[in-house]
Amino acid sequence: MRGVATPIEFRSDNAAGVCPEVLAAIAAANVGSAPGYGADELTAQLQQRVREVFAHRDAEVFPVATGTAANAVGLSALCPPWGSIVCHESAHINVHECGAASLLSGGAVLRALPGPHGQIAPATLEHAFAQTWWDDPHQSQPAVLSVVCPTDLGTIVAPKQLQTLTGLARSRGMRTHLDGARLANAVAALGCAPADVTWRAGIDVMSFGATKNGGMGADAIVSFDARASAELRYRLKRAGHVPSKLRFLSAQLLAMLTDDLWLRLAARANAAAARLVAGLRELGLVPLERTEVNMVFLALDAATVTALAQAGLLFHELTPGTVRLVTSWQTTDAEIDDALTRAATVLGRG
Amino acid sequence: MRGVATPIEFRSDNAAGVCPEVLAAIAAANVGSAPGYGADELTAQLQQRVREVFAHRDAEVFPVATGTAANAVGLSALCPPWGSIVCHESAHINVHECGAASLLSGGAVLRALPGPHGQIAPATLEHAFAQTWWDDPHQSQPAVLSVVCPTDLGTIVAPKQLQTLTGLARSRGMRTHLDGARLANAVAALGCAPADVTWRAGIDVMSFGATKNGGMGADAIVSFDARASAELRYRLKRAGHVPSKLRFLSAQLLAMLTDDLWLRLAARANAAAARLVAGLRELGLVPLERTEVNMVFLALDAATVTALAQAGLLFHELTPGTVRLVTSWQTTDAEIDDALTRAATVLGRG
Amino acid sequence: MRGVATPIEFRSDNAAGVCPEVLAAIAAANVGSAPGYGADELTAQLQQRVREVFAHRDAEVFPVATGTAANAVGLSALCPPWGSIVCHESAHINVHECGAASLLSGGAVLRALPGPHGQIAPATLEHAFAQTWWDDPHQSQPAVLSVVCPTDLGTIVAPKQLQTLTGLARSRGMRTHLDGARLANAVAALGCAPADVTWRAGIDVMSFGATKNGGMGADAIVSFDARASAELRYRLKRAGHVPSKLRFLSAQLLAMLTDDLWLRLAARANAAAARLVAGLRELGLVPLERTEVNMVFLALDAATVTALAQAGLLFHELTPGTVRLVTSWQTTDAEIDDALTRAATVLGRG
Amino acid sequence: MRGVATPIEFRSDNAAGVCPEVLAAIAAANVGSAPGYGADELTAQLQQRVREVFAHRDAEVFPVATGTAANAVGLSALCPPWGSIVCHESAHINVHECGAASLLSGGAVLRALPGPHGQIAPATLEHAFAQTWWDDPHQSQPAVLSVVCPTDLGTIVAPKQLQTLTGLARSRGMRTHLDGARLANAVAALGCAPADVTWRAGIDVMSFGATKNGGMGADAIVSFDARASAELRYRLKRAGHVPSKLRFLSAQLLAMLTDDLWLRLAARANAAAARLVAGLRELGLVPLERTEVNMVFLALDAATVTALAQAGLLFHELTPGTVRLVTSWQTTDAEIDDALTRAATVLGRG
Repeated sequence: MRGVATPIEFRSDNAAGVCPEVLAAIAAANVGSAPGYGADELTAQLQQRVREVFAHRDAEVFPVATGTAANAVGLSALCPPWGSIVCHESAHINVHECGAASLLSGGAVLRALPGPHGQIAPATLEHAFAQTWWDDPHQSQPAVLSVVCPTDLGTIVAPKQLQTLTGLARSRGMRTHLDGARLANAVAALGCAPADVTWRAGIDVMSFGATKNGGMGADAIVSFDARASAELRYRLKRAGHVPSKLRFLSAQLLAMLTDDLWLRLAARANAAAARLVAGLRELGLVPLERTEVNMVFLALDAATVTALAQAGLLFHELTPGTVRLVTSWQTTDAEIDDALTRAATVLGRG
Repeated sequence: MRGVATPIEFRSDNAAGVCPEVLAAIAAANVGSAPGYGADELTAQLQQRVREVFAHRDAEVFPVATGTAANAVGLSALCPPWGSIVCHESAHINVHECGAASLLSGGAVLRALPGPHGQIAPATLEHAFAQTWWDDPHQSQPAVLSVVCPTDLGTIVAPKQLQTLTGLARSRGMRTHLDGARLANAVAALGCAPADVTWRAGIDVMSFGATKNGGMGADAIVSFDARASAELRYRLKRAGHVPSKLRFLSAQLLAMLTDDLWLRLAARANAAAARLVAGLRELGLVPLERTEVNMVFLALDAATVTALAQAGLLFHELTPGTVRLVTSWQTTDAEIDDALTRAATVLGRG
Repeated sequence: MRGVATPIEFRSDNAAGVCPEVLAAIAAANVGSAPGYGADELTAQLQQRVREVFAHRDAEVFPVATGTAANAVGLSALCPPWGSIVCHESAHINVHECGAASLLSGGAVLRALPGPHGQIAPATLEHAFAQTWWDDPHQSQPAVLSVVCPTDLGTIVAPKQLQTLTGLARSRGMRTHLDGARLANAVAALGCAPADVTWRAGIDVMSFGATKNGGMGADAIVSFDARASAELRYRLKRAGHVPSKLRFLSAQLLAMLTDDLWLRLAARANAAAARLVAGLRELGLVPLERTEVNMVFLALDAATVTALAQAGLLFHELTPGTVRLVTSWQTTDAEIDDALTRAATVLGRG
Repeated sequence: MRGVATPIEFRSDNAAGVCPEVLAAIAAANVGSAPGYGADELTAQLQQRVREVFAHRDAEVFPVATGTAANAVGLSALCPPWGSIVCHESAHINVHECGAASLLSGGAVLRALPGPHGQIAPATLEHAFAQTWWDDPHQSQPAVLSVVCPTDLGTIVAPKQLQTLTGLARSRGMRTHLDGARLANAVAALGCAPADVTWRAGIDVMSFGATKNGGMGADAIVSFDARASAELRYRLKRAGHVPSKLRFLSAQLLAMLTDDLWLRLAARANAAAARLVAGLRELGLVPLERTEVNMVFLALDAATVTALAQAGLLFHELTPGTVRLVTSWQTTDAEIDDALTRAATVLGRG
């Protein structure tokens, strides 16, 4: 008798568990009492560590519970309420945050631009700027450029490209934001310095994700902009985003940034995706996008989608016929191979 | 040579650590992968457990990272943006949340009423209602009554009193909210059923705190109102208050509600405060408020404040001359006795 | 010696003056004193008149000072703050209101769809619906369909088409909004009953413009939806949109709706545009859009744009090379003929 | 047989009509066409005139349709969304604007202080400051001081007192706002230069009312602060507060500021109130507040309230037993005398 196949997790990297180092750091943080709301020792250490890792002596870090909070509160410190935030139409802030940026900015709007690979081409940005009625209250004034890296389609915005985009924005007096929910995956893949894809590429404020990368519940806003930093303290509090026992978030982030744990975990997830894609290609399945980090997109017919699900693969069908598989720090080679075997069976190539 | 005295923690119950049961529950939750955003097993169990503990079969629980989030998002589901939220002038939402309720409700205002012991007297509420221009857009229409129990002054609103207040509010078509950041302390002190100080006393939506009571970072909105529950899913998401790995918050809350852990921990904090007050009274220090849970308020001259601080007591001076000491689940009898000894020395009564 | 040519006004119908009937109505309203904020006689008469003209016995009218106010406040009464408002990408609310709908709704977002003639095709709407993650807080839930008629490109959405669109929206539980800043021009052109392009076509709330049509400063929200009507009183007040001397706005609207003045004025503007287009076609200039009301769009090279401006034609260049000419109730045949003569000269076809 | 008495208007100065000069100015403005949204000649002239009248060469004026808009949008340009606006508890923004300041500022809160005569005493302000946790996100940071002059109780804040209050606020880094809905009445009563009760007394931004003073519907924000001015253009537009035919508002304000019309009209209203109070005192009725402009407050028993109303006096009973009578530019001596005769009859002193 055939049993039910063990599920293999590809729904999201946030479906994965917490890595042991983070769990240990939480336990270690639980010694005695400590002042609340970030006035503790661990948060001070994290502050220091972020400045070292990002090679920026004035960077300020604000740990938060969710990536949506990091994005929306971070953007609110950059964008006046009458401004617009220019982003790619696939950006998480545009598609999956239920209007958080508009709420927390007090009414700013998103101006979503198209472009292949989840990225805005410089020419597209310039065209949008040329269409804009600048300095005219009849239009929401473009005030912030928000870039996702890696994008929601799993591609990496090259540091040079990022610099070009932020340069265009800055030439219009705009400020710049990076949604780095999976920044670790990009940095691990690029092998660059963290500064190269952030402030050195012209970014003012970024969301830095750790939850998807083996954290328990700790993302952060990292601000390279003094004016934004000054506002963020208040903006976070009034949005309910200053946990009293903040030290337990700081502990997670500190563990991540110690001994390159964040990059090692991300590299594992990236490698798992690469292995998956290699196997899928052998089965004749070509991803819709180049796989540069830990996300794989496939166009599949409805029958295949169903069959793969029945074979125990856990994944999301984003829109009818478009499937996303995400690997995590926890995905093992054995799981990938098992998944590929099942896929082969489903596709009749076993 | 005299060494520096070990600090004794009375700043806040959120300065305390995480209790072992909660830490164990977090570790236990970290098995395999799980769907994000509350679609997991533990959150389902928590849902069930909340319904049992509060004896309400339609109660819905929404774990969140902070008490401010619980209050402000919860209120936003009760109050139209043009409404006013009636509360006591000492209420946390009025004094310490940096306008969160106004932000998240889209512009609702607070109408703060005075009254002894941090409580609104029914007559005061009736008077406020009599002064109101009802059904007239020239005034923010009172739409929600928000009561804190225990209050920010550490007193308990008796269930009967609560019922009277919510009854008055309901007679005006208003909805009702309870800030239960320390509800455990009130229920432990009253020895009543949790329902008696919540929905049976007329409450529609409440904030349920666990963080101050030995949690790591898990409070919750508990809704007894179907209309509010339906909105909360969206209101939380767009405020960045739906953690992807929600199960680790659910695990904490579930541990709390298992075997009455929440009440046992709160009872410990209450007992520590009672012991402290008894000792202080012997020293001639009479608290400003009756001490019904775990908070003690004292009027002290500046020299005494300084001397106590130098003696290693950690506490907050709320406004010049008014000091607050808070005990927690972690406060030991030995700490209380040590603190009293130091206080006696400071006061020259050693 | 050649003098400077008298300017001919095509910038906007809001550049035109106030028609004599409206001015007389204002003067007539200035007799004695009257209660403020809409409790006056004229506002009551307007209420009655709107119900007659739109053949809807529960319609409620709320005069406001601007079209943006009518749109944004009207939409705020239809859309929950976590919802999205589906509209055409050329819609005034999307392009020219500086985020007003997001502000006044408390954070709702716009979801702009493409389509020829400034109109959403039913298939486009269905496709957008098919892509939506319904009942999922990870996406702003489509909550309102907002249609402009006539569109910002000067085309009319046929009543049947409007009904199809609102029917699709309603099948998803959405509510419906009409931006009728120039509704008079559409009704005049269609020769239909006002109800046919509004509530009988499935509209819940609309903006009704009079300012562009010979008013001094009086647009209105007309609500066919009791729930929205109840909210609007408060939403208008808290947005600063309830003038104390409201009767002077009501007087304008009442004059408009008396003896079909609104339709007669709009018909004049429409006729002027038709005359203009006929002449332009003879000169070889084909409008970019069909001219169904009082707006004409032309693609012109930079030299022609400059020459026409130098010849005294007042118009807007919306984006480089795209020119809009708008006629009004005040535009005379002589002006059109004069403008055409000048254009002929510029184009070398004199 | 006795007929019904002609009503005498004391409900509000906004119940009065439009003065002939303003009506004439509107008619005169209706010549030809003009660019919209304030780009017209009359608005430019108004700008110049405001700078002359207020003796401030950088003042910027923004005409709006309502006083609530002037207050709430003006405040939004001064107060960060996490700030608090300190005002008197009787202030219009606190009592009668339905939360407009919170909406338009994106969540700022009001901190209302008590004090006799509708005024904040300097000591009360200092006490409030001493209680504040400055530079701490746990409290809404006091960011704006808003003073009403004349107050909602009809008293005048002396220029020196105003200077003291704004000085205290400025020493804390706060900005300052004046609700001058009836500023004309205060300036007329004081006989001072308009600058003396505004920017020379430390005011950054003010609401300047004309509607209650014989206008048709034209108040204004006047900004003496460049940063606020730059924001106001956008803040007004996105709130729906930039009328397309703005010139008709500018025309009204310009007429007001020509030949001291605003002061002459206000002086008339003030004189009428003085005459009324003199007569009431003879009848033994002492106003609750000193009558410094055009508002009279009386404490009356229910029977007297009813009898006066039946005698044809139109007024508001603000709360049970407290009656307000307001005179206007239109109130005649004959009306005052008639009203006093009727009051005498009611009071049995005929």
